[in-house]
Amino acid sequence: MKYFVSLLVLSLFVRISAQDSIMIRAIYDEALLRGESYENLRQLCKDVGPRLSGSTGAQMAVEWSEAKMKSYGFDRVYLQEIKVPHWERGTKESAWFRTVDGQLTKVHILALGGSIGTNGMMEAEVIEFKNLEELKKAKASKIKGKIVFLNQAMDAAQIQTFKAYGACYAIRGNGAVEAGKLGAKAVIIRSLGLPQDIHPHTGSMHYEDSVARIPAGALSTQDANDLSAALAKGKVNFVFEMDCRVYPDATSYNVIAEIRGTEKPEEIIVFGGHLDSWDAGEGAHDDGAGVIHCLEALRILKAMNYKPKHTLRVVFFMNEENGNMGGKSYATLAKAAGEKHIAALESDRGGFVPRGFGVDGSDAQVAFLQTFAPLYKNYDLHVFEKGYGGVDIGPLKEQYPGIPLFGFVPDSQRYFDYHHAPSDVFESVNRRELELGAAAISSFIYALDLKLK
Amino acid sequence: MKYFVSLLVLSLFVRISAQDSIMIRAIYDEALLRGESYENLRQLCKDVGPRLSGSTGAQMAVEWSEAKMKSYGFDRVYLQEIKVPHWERGTKESAWFRTVDGQLTKVHILALGGSIGTNGMMEAEVIEFKNLEELKKAKASKIKGKIVFLNQAMDAAQIQTFKAYGACYAIRGNGAVEAGKLGAKAVIIRSLGLPQDIHPHTGSMHYEDSVARIPAGALSTQDANDLSAALAKGKVNFVFEMDCRVYPDATSYNVIAEIRGTEKPEEIIVFGGHLDSWDAGEGAHDDGAGVIHCLEALRILKAMNYKPKHTLRVVFFMNEENGNMGGKSYATLAKAAGEKHIAALESDRGGFVPRGFGVDGSDAQVAFLQTFAPLYKNYDLHVFEKGYGGVDIGPLKEQYPGIPLFGFVPDSQRYFDYHHAPSDVFESVNRRELELGAAAISSFIYALDLKLK
Repeated sequence: MKYFVSLLVLSLFVRISAQDSIMIRAIYDEALLRGESYENLRQLCKDVGPRLSGSTGAQMAVEWSEAKMKSYGFDRVYLQEIKVPHWERGTKESAWFRTVDGQLTKVHILALGGSIGTNGMMEAEVIEFKNLEELKKAKASKIKGKIVFLNQAMDAAQIQTFKAYGACYAIRGNGAVEAGKLGAKAVIIRSLGLPQDIHPHTGSMHYEDSVARIPAGALSTQDANDLSAALAKGKVNFVFEMDCRVYPDATSYNVIAEIRGTEKPEEIIVFGGHLDSWDAGEGAHDDGAGVIHCLEALRILKAMNYKPKHTLRVVFFMNEENGNMGGKSYATLAKAAGEKHIAALESDRGGFVPRGFGVDGSDAQVAFLQTFAPLYKNYDLHVFEKGYGGVDIGPLKEQYPGIPLFGFVPDSQRYFDYHHAPSDVFESVNRRELELGAAAISSFIYALDLKLK
Repeated sequence: MKYFVSLLVLSLFVRISAQDSIMIRAIYDEALLRGESYENLRQLCKDVGPRLSGSTGAQMAVEWSEAKMKSYGFDRVYLQEIKVPHWERGTKESAWFRTVDGQLTKVHILALGGSIGTNGMMEAEVIEFKNLEELKKAKASKIKGKIVFLNQAMDAAQIQTFKAYGACYAIRGNGAVEAGKLGAKAVIIRSLGLPQDIHPHTGSMHYEDSVARIPAGALSTQDANDLSAALAKGKVNFVFEMDCRVYPDATSYNVIAEIRGTEKPEEIIVFGGHLDSWDAGEGAHDDGAGVIHCLEALRILKAMNYKPKHTLRVVFFMNEENGNMGGKSYATLAKAAGEKHIAALESDRGGFVPRGFGVDGSDAQVAFLQTFAPLYKNYDLHVFEKGYGGVDIGPLKEQYPGIPLFGFVPDSQRYFDYHHAPSDVFESVNRRELELGAAAISSFIYALDLKLK
């Protein structure tokens, strides 16, 4: 009897495994031979372009996405209305530094998202700090009326580039508050980017009601090096103008497409990325690649006439970059509508060659994820481990305690060459790497649908 | 007693392992924070440039390499004289196709390395074949006087891009012989490249003495598509001129640097790549990256004042692309000199993000390689398996039976975007990916030196 059971289990395993192999191979073939991800990313980057929340570009992105999803004939395509912050860079953004001998150097600057403008030309002496901790220890008398320069470099020796980014995040997010507390006139930071080049990297920052608001901008890493070198020789003034400003909150949308489940249609597997992007560049890696990955994943499953057990839902979240109102609203509305979400996945780490998947979840969920590894043996994916899901799907955790949040993990080594920079354009994405990402996600969603009860 | 031994073994293991971790971390720091690989690759690509065997560029590359190695103060730097084939592209290389209605389309062509020229303008009707097997089955009466077009596409669905390349290799290597046997006037092939673009990919071909020699060229994949589409509509003539030719064999050099072993100086661990490159492009990935990886690997070990047990020798092999006289001569001369080689490693798969190492060797050698995996747990290397060493180190197998031939394995997905094409330039190499490759190889050579008896 025991022998019989063992055989049965074995044969069941082999049968499913062989079926899986054929299906996964077919998914990869569709992505690599008849894929639409690259052309769709081209359209999103070139026909739509940058799409910061509240902008006309963001509205065009919503319309493009809805039309594209409808063209694929999914069971349901709809918009979910949300409120988003609306900040605009304006038209004036220029900066120089001036040494005591009067020599001027023009630098590449981008206002940080959310910053107030300078209200015309602003000039003050620069004072440099290595990081936020060093600034916090400074005396207000030394800072008052000056422009604080936070020159913390991302650690190139850190193999995990997201960790190097995380370690510097505070200078961008909290620099204006900490410098403002000490009476600074403005704050400028070294861009959070790994290469030494001329591209500044923008990104979100915040103010606190109790602290005077001061303008905040990012210099390219090369300009930060040059400014630091000038400061090592003597007094330096920084001169700049930015006319960015905050507008009243705007109406925008998450864009959603579904294939309805055949066995448990009320149980939802949601996957997506964010549709909004910073206004510099085209948001190609961040996160054009992510939304296109997920759209292509669903398109492929439909093209193969796959009938999922659970409902498969793609969400193009709005406003990840400066508020996460898309992610927060989605989770709240889902719960309020009584929807049942059983798993979520996000792609928001660029369109690079896939390395695997991580999961923000319990030990049992990590062990579950590890059962996916054999499926990808022939597809060069090696990472199946505890990790991070994503900003957009993060709020589901509160509404659906215990839900596993999966994160797609592409190679991260080139990500911070482009992240939030003018160089994050369509041309920075490699076609084959993008297609392999879409195939990895499509097959993962397929396997997830099969493996989940 | 048994207990005591176990403890001893354990403590020995832990001690070496901790030491290894510190050393490997230090190697990565040197490569990423104070690395010279990127600047050296820039010099090789921009100050030297293309460097096909027998060309002035190749001689400049030899001189640059020797001077650079000497600047690092290795124990020994020397040239090894060899004879190499000498083929030159010439100055005329242009092609069109003409449909029956007289419409002309200019195409991007590169003569294949070793091809004869067309002796002025050549024009003939095109006949297309899907692959070499189909051509072999054709009747000579249908081929005679025509230009054979071998339009075999690399299989984009193949995850291992080198396998997709291998499957098409015959149209380039043997196309002229097979078409010549059937009386063709010339052969043109679809480039062995994965993207659909305008860059033709050159590479070596061969003739046989018993078969009439005919000119051989490669069209870009886009042009191959266009030509094929025109042929689907009717008769098409191909018109081209190439004045490439073979010159008498030339004198050239392998360029060699060593750090002498302290315990077993007579035992040599050799590692390298090839210094020669195709004349189109700058040989940045193929194989500028490989030689620079290995140079940087040795520079780092010297910078850390590491005293190897065995002699560590870097070889910049000449003439991998069209003859492998560097690799063949090196192995023969080493054996003749009574040298003892205990292991070899090659980097000739581009400067992309590292994935691991393969070994052409016995099961025991594969098992040995797998003991390296834990060292790279924090460095995102996952591939430690049976594989291929490299063309240059291949001839060592015959001279030193049983020698393990290791191959550095970077990610292969973008390699055939650039391989042998004008687009293989310095700008196609990512700084961080290159540096990570150098660090992986340097630490591997360190661990190999420690682990080998």
